[in-house]
Amino acid sequence: MRIDRLKEFISENELDGVLITGKENLFYFTGSSPVLGGYLVVTPDDAIFIVPELEYEEARETSRVPVEKFKTGKELYERLSSFKLKKLGIEGRTSFSTLQTLREKVGAADFVSVDDVVKELRIIKTPEEIEVIKAACGIADMAMMAALEEISEGKREREIAAKMEYVMKMNGAEKPAFDTIIASGWRAALPHGLASDKRIEKGDLVVIDEGALYRHYHSDTTRTIVVGSPNEKQKDIYYAVLEAQRKGVEAARPGMTAKELDTLVRDVIKEYGYGDYFIHSTGHGVGLQIHEWPRVSQQDDTELKPGMVITIEPGIYLPKFGGVRIEDTILITENGAERLTKTERELI
Amino acid sequence: MRIDRLKEFISENELDGVLITGKENLFYFTGSSPVLGGYLVVTPDDAIFIVPELEYEEARETSRVPVEKFKTGKELYERLSSFKLKKLGIEGRTSFSTLQTLREKVGAADFVSVDDVVKELRIIKTPEEIEVIKAACGIADMAMMAALEEISEGKREREIAAKMEYVMKMNGAEKPAFDTIIASGWRAALPHGLASDKRIEKGDLVVIDEGALYRHYHSDTTRTIVVGSPNEKQKDIYYAVLEAQRKGVEAARPGMTAKELDTLVRDVIKEYGYGDYFIHSTGHGVGLQIHEWPRVSQQDDTELKPGMVITIEPGIYLPKFGGVRIEDTILITENGAERLTKTERELI
Repeated sequence: MRIDRLKEFISENELDGVLITGKENLFYFTGSSPVLGGYLVVTPDDAIFIVPELEYEEARETSRVPVEKFKTGKELYERLSSFKLKKLGIEGRTSFSTLQTLREKVGAADFVSVDDVVKELRIIKTPEEIEVIKAACGIADMAMMAALEEISEGKREREIAAKMEYVMKMNGAEKPAFDTIIASGWRAALPHGLASDKRIEKGDLVVIDEGALYRHYHSDTTRTIVVGSPNEKQKDIYYAVLEAQRKGVEAARPGMTAKELDTLVRDVIKEYGYGDYFIHSTGHGVGLQIHEWPRVSQQDDTELKPGMVITIEPGIYLPKFGGVRIEDTILITENGAERLTKTERELI
Repeated sequence: MRIDRLKEFISENELDGVLITGKENLFYFTGSSPVLGGYLVVTPDDAIFIVPELEYEEARETSRVPVEKFKTGKELYERLSSFKLKKLGIEGRTSFSTLQTLREKVGAADFVSVDDVVKELRIIKTPEEIEVIKAACGIADMAMMAALEEISEGKREREIAAKMEYVMKMNGAEKPAFDTIIASGWRAALPHGLASDKRIEKGDLVVIDEGALYRHYHSDTTRTIVVGSPNEKQKDIYYAVLEAQRKGVEAARPGMTAKELDTLVRDVIKEYGYGDYFIHSTGHGVGLQIHEWPRVSQQDDTELKPGMVITIEPGIYLPKFGGVRIEDTILITENGAERLTKTERELI
């Protein structure tokens, strides 16, 4: 069915075929994910997955699409040439080097991006995909619990991340969904403060942003705590962010646009007087990639629909003082939204 | 000095400039590595590093090249357009989407790959780079020690990897250099058997292939053990691989080519009668990327030179039976080669 949509795209755009090489798109369309990569060729009538010889046996076991193998680049290019792919649909990420090879050795001359049709498919998750994302979110919650237990005065941010990632892997994750963020004290004002060698100090705000990669799907969640007792200003920004995040989760539903959801969350932060310190968008889609569609931002008018999985993650960042971010991965349902990451949000 | 070589390339190829956007090349040329990326523009007389506003402060502190910031895509494209980059040098990995944007919004019309000149620079490591790679190799050795202590009958491959990656991170690594391979029993016949949920059984060959990413540089090492007492066939392939790997390390020196080194190692495996089961190349360069230049293979005639860092990693893979691989990261010195990963190699 997914491949059928690519065939429609071929017909709509009068292409000779589509070539997919991106790791997660290969998994999406074939069910297989060779470490050394592969080439999914879709033509008006056919689909074939061409993989390096070393990957052949495993690909044959996992792929829903017929599999062929190649030994050398020459063999691969000859086989690709046989499809006569002059006007070719490719992914937007396809590299300049690959384009040159396709031109010089495969006879392709004209390229069209297939990104929009891939997005149209992948933006709505199937029940099977949702189950896997829920499991990935469950692992993220376990890692968050480990972080909350582990964080104390004197420990290094990196040590906390090490423990969290150990917990993820022991619970079945392939790896962290992205480089774990542990940003304490002044570093909490950095939206992307990767866990560093800084030691956690008493009174620090600590932003913990993490997720797990599980069976090819990602999860994403953030909590913020204070080591010791929060001061008034810390409380002030904490409760502003918490209210914005809660209102976002409550409001998210089919029919509203991603932009409207961003506005609604942003307005809460503005009401508290911190609008200038919420310096990123409200969220993003999550799936086979950690950042996918829709973007919950002022630039994305996508209408929310059941089966979309997005994050809601408002934040306030005060330079030198620190910052707060609270984030859940949520599923858009028929009537509203469901939180897939479930760690308690009120932590100070 | 590195940027001067890009300026020479501009002049040699009559370009208007070079645009670098790849993460590790940005780090290589600027000393800075913004999480959200950046745009290094080099013109015949100038170099400027343009980063998203969120990254500005950090980039200014770390970059050796003057830094500018942008707020929106529009602002970025206007600034890039101001350089009049009609004929532009770019990295081979630059994506089709980026090329389209450069054409439509920046006025670029003609693209030339800068990969060869980047390779020419990066293939020889400076003393400072070698120190960091040595540290990354030291962390890989610690993780290997943890694996050797941890592996026992009944444990899952993934649990071993979890412990190793915890040790890496606790010792300062940013993360694993690549997905850790723990391939036991029949899975040891898979050259890329990522740690799975398989339990380790008595009598299993276990291939452990891992490395650490430390301060942007990678390390790479493999050891193979037998759980319990090895049988004759296991010993046979183990000692063939060990001899090939030792001879490779002893022979590697300036003046020989990567291909000659591959041949020398491959011939040892052939003498033992397992030539058909050594199904990959002997090794690869290691640095800011886990796989870089040279390739120690039949396809690469690069002459080895002092300052190159490569792996030597022969293996024998017998389908269904299992496999053996032994690998070190080594440095080509004035007179020979130095092992940078140092875990004992004779482990059965």
